[in-house]
Formats: sequence, C-alpha cells, structure tokens
Amino acid sequence: MGPKTSSHKSVRPAGGPRSAYAGLVEKQVFELGTPYVTVGGGTIKQVRVGYETIGHLNAAGDNAILVPHYFSGTSHFAGRYRPSDALPGYWDLIVGPGKPLDTDRYFLIGVDSLANVNALDGTTVTTGPASIDPDTGRPYGMRFPQVQIRDSVNVQKALLDRLGVKRLHAVMGASMGSMQGYEWAAVHPDLVDRLVAVVPCASVDAYTLARTRDLCAVIMLDPKWARGDYARTARPLKGLALALRILTLLSLAPPGCDIYGRQWADPAKDPASHMAHTYAINTYIDSLAEASAQTIDANSLIYTARANELFTVGGAPTLEEGLKAIKAKVLLIPAKNDRLFPPEQTRKVRDLLRAQGNEVEYFELDGPFGHLDGATSITQAGAVVARFLGS
Amino acid sequence: MGPKTSSHKSVRPAGGPRSAYAGLVEKQVFELGTPYVTVGGGTIKQVRVGYETIGHLNAAGDNAILVPHYFSGTSHFAGRYRPSDALPGYWDLIVGPGKPLDTDRYFLIGVDSLANVNALDGTTVTTGPASIDPDTGRPYGMRFPQVQIRDSVNVQKALLDRLGVKRLHAVMGASMGSMQGYEWAAVHPDLVDRLVAVVPCASVDAYTLARTRDLCAVIMLDPKWARGDYARTARPLKGLALALRILTLLSLAPPGCDIYGRQWADPAKDPASHMAHTYAINTYIDSLAEASAQTIDANSLIYTARANELFTVGGAPTLEEGLKAIKAKVLLIPAKNDRLFPPEQTRKVRDLLRAQGNEVEYFELDGPFGHLDGATSITQAGAVVARFLGS
Repeated sequence: MGPKTSSHKSVRPAGGPRSAYAGLVEKQVFELGTPYVTVGGGTIKQVRVGYETIGHLNAAGDNAILVPHYFSGTSHFAGRYRPSDALPGYWDLIVGPGKPLDTDRYFLIGVDSLANVNALDGTTVTTGPASIDPDTGRPYGMRFPQVQIRDSVNVQKALLDRLGVKRLHAVMGASMGSMQGYEWAAVHPDLVDRLVAVVPCASVDAYTLARTRDLCAVIMLDPKWARGDYARTARPLKGLALALRILTLLSLAPPGCDIYGRQWADPAKDPASHMAHTYAINTYIDSLAEASAQTIDANSLIYTARANELFTVGGAPTLEEGLKAIKAKVLLIPAKNDRLFPPEQTRKVRDLLRAQGNEVEYFELDGPFGHLDGATSITQAGAVVARFLGS
Repeated sequence: MGPKTSSHKSVRPAGGPRSAYAGLVEKQVFELGTPYVTVGGGTIKQVRVGYETIGHLNAAGDNAILVPHYFSGTSHFAGRYRPSDALPGYWDLIVGPGKPLDTDRYFLIGVDSLANVNALDGTTVTTGPASIDPDTGRPYGMRFPQVQIRDSVNVQKALLDRLGVKRLHAVMGASMGSMQGYEWAAVHPDLVDRLVAVVPCASVDAYTLARTRDLCAVIMLDPKWARGDYARTARPLKGLALALRILTLLSLAPPGCDIYGRQWADPAKDPASHMAHTYAINTYIDSLAEASAQTIDANSLIYTARANELFTVGGAPTLEEGLKAIKAKVLLIPAKNDRLFPPEQTRKVRDLLRAQGNEVEYFELDGPFGHLDGATSITQAGAVVARFLGS
C-alpha cells in the first residue's frame, strides 16, 4: 500500500473545538504476511497489529512522524473513533492543523505494540500471549515467544514500508514509546531525522528492571494466573489489578495525589478506627486499576513488562555504546516530578549525545503527576515540539 | 525500676575494635502490667516489648537518648547479643565511648515496637497479631487492635518511667524511628530536648500511604494468608517475600543497584532467550526477601504498614499544625538519593520548624542506597550528630 492508497481516514468535523485535534480516526490492521522471527529467536506465524494515521504522506514519503505508545497505551494518540467517545487519544491536545503535531504538514502514525496489554479492549489489535496459536487453536499464554522493544520496531518498519514511508521526519514517543524512539534512532540512524523522547528512558537500569519485575511477580502470585493458562472467564483479576495499582503508583508523583490528601474513603469510617477502613487515594487508585483490569490481559502485561526489562538502546551493553549509532536531532522532554525516569537520567543522556556531536534540545515538564505528565502536561512542550519539528 | 536498678547489662570487651561499639548487649523485656488501651480504642490485655540499653542513666535521669527503630528494625541499634553474632546493631558505627552516641555520656535505649514485624526471629519481643490472645489461647491474627505510632510512643513512655528517665536528652530515629521521634517531640514537648530525625518523615502523604498499602495488598493476595489465620507451619511466605521485595525496592535507590547492573543471574542463561531467565539484581533482591520472610510475620507487617499509613505528626490533620507543638532542637538528616522520603520533603519540614522558631540543623547523607543510607551511610553525619547532641 503506497502513499496514494494511504490508509488515512481522519475527518475533522466542521466547527469542532480548535483546542484539540477533535477529529475521527479509524483503527486499521496491518498484517505482516510472513512468519516473524523475534530478536530472541522465536517464531510468530501471523503478526497483526493495529495502527491509525492522521494527515497525508507526501510524494517524497518523508513527512511521516511515528508515534509509538507507552506501556499501557495503544496506537490511539489523538482523535476519537466515534464522536461519542468520552476521551480522545492521549496526545490529542498537540495534534491538529497548526498544532505542534501539525496534521496539515505531517503524516502521523500510531501503532499498537506486540503483546499490547489492552488485548481484550475490543479495539486494540495486537499479536501476543492472548492471541490464538494457529498450531493449537488455543491462546499462546506463556508459550508466546518473548518479544522485545526491537521486535515492535521491526514490525513498525514493515508497516512503514507498506505505507510507502521513505524516511521518518520524526519518531515521538512517551515512556515505553521513547524506548521505541531511541531504538529506531539507533537501529535505523539514516532513516530517522528527529527523535522526540518524552518522559524517556534510553536504557533500563537494574533498579527499574527490578521494579518492573514486581508487576509480573504480583500477577503470578494470583492462583488464578495458573501459569498463564487462565480461561477468559476466570482471569487473575485480583493480581492484575494489584499489578496495575503498583504500576500507577510507580508512574504517579506525590503532588498528583494531593487532591486526595489524607481524606477518608468514607467520611463515616475513620481509618484509625478499623483495619478495614481506608483512604480516598487508595479507593481511587484501586478503582482505576480494577476498571483497567477488565480489558487488560495479565499475560500481555507480563510480556510487555519483560520487553521493558530487556531494553537497552540498540541492544548495547552500555548506554554510551547504544547511543553512539544515533544520528538524529534529539528533543528530550522529561518531567520534573517523574520518579520512574527522573530528569537526571535524561540529563545524562543529553550530555552523552551532545558529547558525541548530536544536536540536542532539552525541556522539562513541570506538572503534579510525575511520569504521567508525559501525557497530561504535554501542552507545556507544545511550542518547543513545534519549533523542533520545523527545524 | 529506678536508675539505681537500671537494666544496663552491656559489656565492652577489652581489646575490641575501636571503630564501632563492639560491645555486648542484652535484650530485656518490659511488661506494662496493666491492660493498654490503644489510641484507636482497642484494648491489649498484656503488653510486652523488648528493649536494650547501653551506658548509664545519670542521677538526674536526664542523659537518656531513645532510639526507636525503623519499619523492619528492632531495639538492636548497636552491639552484639553474642560475640559470635555476624552483625552488630544497625547504628553500631556511631555508638561507643567517644562516638557520636557516646556511651560514656548518654544512656541509650532501643525499644521493640508494638506489632514488630520480626515477631518470629526468636529475639524480638513484641505484642502484636502474632501474640497469643489470652482470651482465646490462639494468635490474635487480624483481631489484634490496630496500633499507631503514638501507641509505640506511649509504651516507650511507660518504659522510660520504669527506668527512671526524667527527660530525654534526645530521641534519634531513622525512617519509622523518625516518626516516633517527631511524635515524641510533639506529644511530650517538655520532655524532649533534642530530636535527630534520619531519612525522616513527619507526616505520611497520600502517595506514600498508597504505596505502603501495596505491601498489605500483596500479602493478602497470597491464598495462604487466609485472612490472617495462617498456621505457623503454613505461612503466606510467597506474598510476604514479595511484599518484602517491594519494600526493599521502595527503600533502595538506582546507584545502589549498579553493582549488579544488567548482569544475568546465571551467565549461561540470557534473559533475552527465555522468560524464565532473569537478572542478578532480581535474584539478589528475592534472596534477601525470602531470607527475611523466614522470621518476619505477615500480619505484623500489615499492622506496621498500617501504623505508617495512619501517621501524621501529633495526629494533626496538617503537617503545619502537627509541628507546632514541637519545642526541641532538631537535627534533620535526609539522604540525597532517598526516593521514599526525598530530601525536599524534609527541607519543607526544616523551613516550617525554623519559621515557628525552632533551632534546626540540616545535613544530607550522600550515598548510593537512598533511604537505606540512613543506616549504611550514617557515619557521614557522625560529627554533626556529636556536636548537636553536645550542644
């Protein structure tokens, strides 16, 4: 499928709000067509991933911006699938005509990762442990091959080839999306002109990989996990919700919890008076986690966590070596209160890239939600992103 | 038991190393004698806690330094119980004749908390959910009354009365020990001359209480927890070890994990090649957690976590109000890399205390282990502590 048959289906309704993209987008499906051999040596017979695009690919095929997603995200970075959708995609506020991710200038592409955690939401299209193994007719479960960030990059590369994209004007991703961005820039240095890395991580350190492992261990503690062979009607929802609770708290920052402070969950039930009474922040986080657990697949979360654990840029043993291949201009956008990937880690990457001659810009988001400010506070970086993409 | 019958039994062996206290201490038992009514309104019929002392109480009864312990700690802050003990108490390096906690000048007292997590280690003496309920002859389990930091302070006050302590030259505690220190200074402002708060927390915020709750939720996910009524031979060891793993990671900092880096647990088993292969940092943290789980009681961990969740200094709704009662001189010693109680929280306390007229000193530990530097890097603060205690 070349640029002329681009899969773009976005529509901007007349009179819609100008403050956001507010258009409609359509989830589409990319099938690889041939068996895919993972970086780790496993084979996936059929790879299907969802994607969505906004804007138009130019004739030269060089105005595309790839937007890989974060851990619990999907291809849905902007717009709505239906006018009635409660929320648009996560970066909607900076996407649209004249916006930093300018849909009049760029061809924007979001792609679902392999083993995407949202496998059960009815919209996400992914190949992972929740997929049916064609050899057995049953879900892969833990028999699915281990996948890495590089594997998602490889599948994205095949999709871009299919779409007729010749080079990337930019890759822009938040969190795990930034890992994919770094990987793109390191593995295809001559195809990536710019990298925008938001609340980024260029190499998962020992501390972070250990904390990522916690999520898997919690799911595996739930007897319903059953070594990954749970039925769709008997999923390990308790372990999964607890893993999602812990993931949310890894991603949050103290100021973001201040809206609840030490408020009780029930004004009639003082936590000091009984072990069963609790605080509003706890029921709030639990309700988010339990809601997410309805459409998140436990095994897919384990696989995605594993992909994070395994990640170092370019697969290199050290950060320094991994960054060496990168030729792109780089814009780094950490968040001041991020406790998962604190700004000092990104300042180190900035200094290394500058020392090796890369052009690097640095902008710190200042919001209350820490790591989550990569989505919620992104408009702060709007002007910087616009200028960087136009440079 | 007055000062003349002080329970001091410490002995400094001739020729022992001068770099640490290196003396022998003896765990002793304090029994309250009367039923204790908790702050939350529950009744504990018999309260017994362990304590140990080093040095001698003077005739005026005003040279005592109380050393309450951190979350997973005990009364054992220095010395050894037996010459063959592998390790001395946690602050041994700053305790001894001429040391910052100068045993020639001060009467040092460590006390086991209520619901101490180490209930099963054979040395800790505590009253908590693992204790036998005299009414039933069975362990209390989750029927034990909820206890708060203030309850441990109340029991310590009764012990100090028994020992003949008239006023505290200082309270010095790390982490949860600092909470007890803040509480002492707020609740007995006329009895506490100095507070030394190490890797401290004066009020548990929403973010921290939510992360503390994770520990309890993980234990409760283990089917062997059985709502707290597990047999001694069928304890929820998996959930407990995972909670201890998470607690360790909450307390650690990235530089402290760098000694392992991304080293594989088994040089022959590349984590990239199989889901079951892992990293050295993971097996290291797990081995620590599994070893601790052997002598830590799951319900007691839940109760201690709960006491932390409930803590605000003086029981006040805001930090500002809680600090108001404090008259003591204060020395604050946060750790630069502490991600659990980051220095900026303590700088806020410093500023509030100074604004209300308290004399406040501030010293930041700079070590690789973050929160754990409160124990491992304490010698950095030795001179500051010595001068402060002598002031």
